Amino acid sequence: MADRFFTSDLSTATATLSGPEAHHALHVLRLIVGDDIRLFDGAGTTVTGVVESAGRRDVEVTIKTRSFAERRAEGRVIVAAAPPKGDRLKWMVEKLTELGVDEYIPLRTHRSVVDAAKWKPDKLQATIIAAAKQCARDWLMDIAEPIEFAALISDVQPGHSLHIAHPYAVTSQQQSAALGSAHSHMVLIGPEGGFTDDEVELAVSAAAAPLEWPGTILRVETAAIMAAVMLRNLSVS
Amino acid sequence: MADRFFTSDLSTATATLSGPEAHHALHVLRLIVGDDIRLFDGAGTTVTGVVESAGRRDVEVTIKTRSFAERRAEGRVIVAAAPPKGDRLKWMVEKLTELGVDEYIPLRTHRSVVDAAKWKPDKLQATIIAAAKQCARDWLMDIAEPIEFAALISDVQPGHSLHIAHPYAVTSQQQSAALGSAHSHMVLIGPEGGFTDDEVELAVSAAAAPLEWPGTILRVETAAIMAAVMLRNLSVS
Repeated sequence: MADRFFTSDLSTATATLSGPEAHHALHVLRLIVGDDIRLFDGAGTTVTGVVESAGRRDVEVTIKTRSFAERRAEGRVIVAAAPPKGDRLKWMVEKLTELGVDEYIPLRTHRSVVDAAKWKPDKLQATIIAAAKQCARDWLMDIAEPIEFAALISDVQPGHSLHIAHPYAVTSQQQSAALGSAHSHMVLIGPEGGFTDDEVELAVSAAAAPLEWPGTILRVETAAIMAAVMLRNLSVS
Repeated sequence: MADRFFTSDLSTATATLSGPEAHHALHVLRLIVGDDIRLFDGAGTTVTGVVESAGRRDVEVTIKTRSFAERRAEGRVIVAAAPPKGDRLKWMVEKLTELGVDEYIPLRTHRSVVDAAKWKPDKLQATIIAAAKQCARDWLMDIAEPIEFAALISDVQPGHSLHIAHPYAVTSQQQSAALGSAHSHMVLIGPEGGFTDDEVELAVSAAAAPLEWPGTILRVETAAIMAAVMLRNLSVS
């Protein structure tokens, strides 16, 4: 499959590539005027077009055909996890994107803060775009604003089935059995030091079902990926 | 839980930490003579002991108590994947270790070679040890010698259930239904360019069942992690 290039605006008859996308088109794939090209906007629209002009830093494209993929309405998967540090956050975001997770919610918990000065969603956006290109996703994974754990729990929507990845979370079997039919699956993943007992209690009182994993203790990003695989698998079965 | 330190030899009444393990004990946790310490050998044995002497680069430990965990005999999970490049290999090995995979087999396929000069299992061993410490595993994940795809297939043992992560692999439902009871689960994961048609045919003729993933195209390391989650989950259910 030919490479797709990302641009956030495909609303008019022409489109512009800039930044790393233009660099890739011009200096890696060496596209020139008249070449065919495919673009996507990460919001369902993919187009084919022709390179109209190729500058040093920008590529102008005339759009020829358009297609639109609806966003998944059922079986959405949302991962709410305390952000791991450094490269582990970037890696987690890349893998969640590849695995088809719909939204990542950075969680502030008792044992983890999200430092506003160091929280750089723009950098993560580049990772999400690259991963979406890699795995041919039509919709980018959303990243929410960081949110307090208690605020998230109090705002869970009807139709969301809630899960918690925590070794000692105990809930009833009835709750776990309700997995298949939900509109959305949201999983809660604590920080390195784990959720506090109060946080677990709060989640359980909101009917969060435990996602169990045999034997080993998982890092935040590993638990997030494990949960994404299990919930994506549930949501299509 | 207190940190555990790795040493490959716990066969006698004393043990020695060296290299990064000694560094961690001496310069990060600042252990001194008389401190309690826990060691493990990655082959089932965990001991408690006391720091007997602390040099600049080595720590001598007198062992007090021993415990032994048998290796899992049923439901073993083996991932045979073409090694991804650079950091992706290291990351894959870390995550497979955390997820409890028993063995990783580096695969040579038609579209991927494993460069013998660049194949450094020793470096991966450090990653496996660190991950085993992190997730409290008693047994290290094994890394096999790189093997040709055809040689692996011709040598599949009875009791192994074989799986293939490939978008277009088609096998009978009967094969897929046999998942739960196997002694070991082995999954085959191709290189960046995918398995060739011949390779897929060979795997299917050996009764490999497809592991399906909805929608997106996964990188090698992502497919390996996805497969590990799904097979570990199958093997305990």
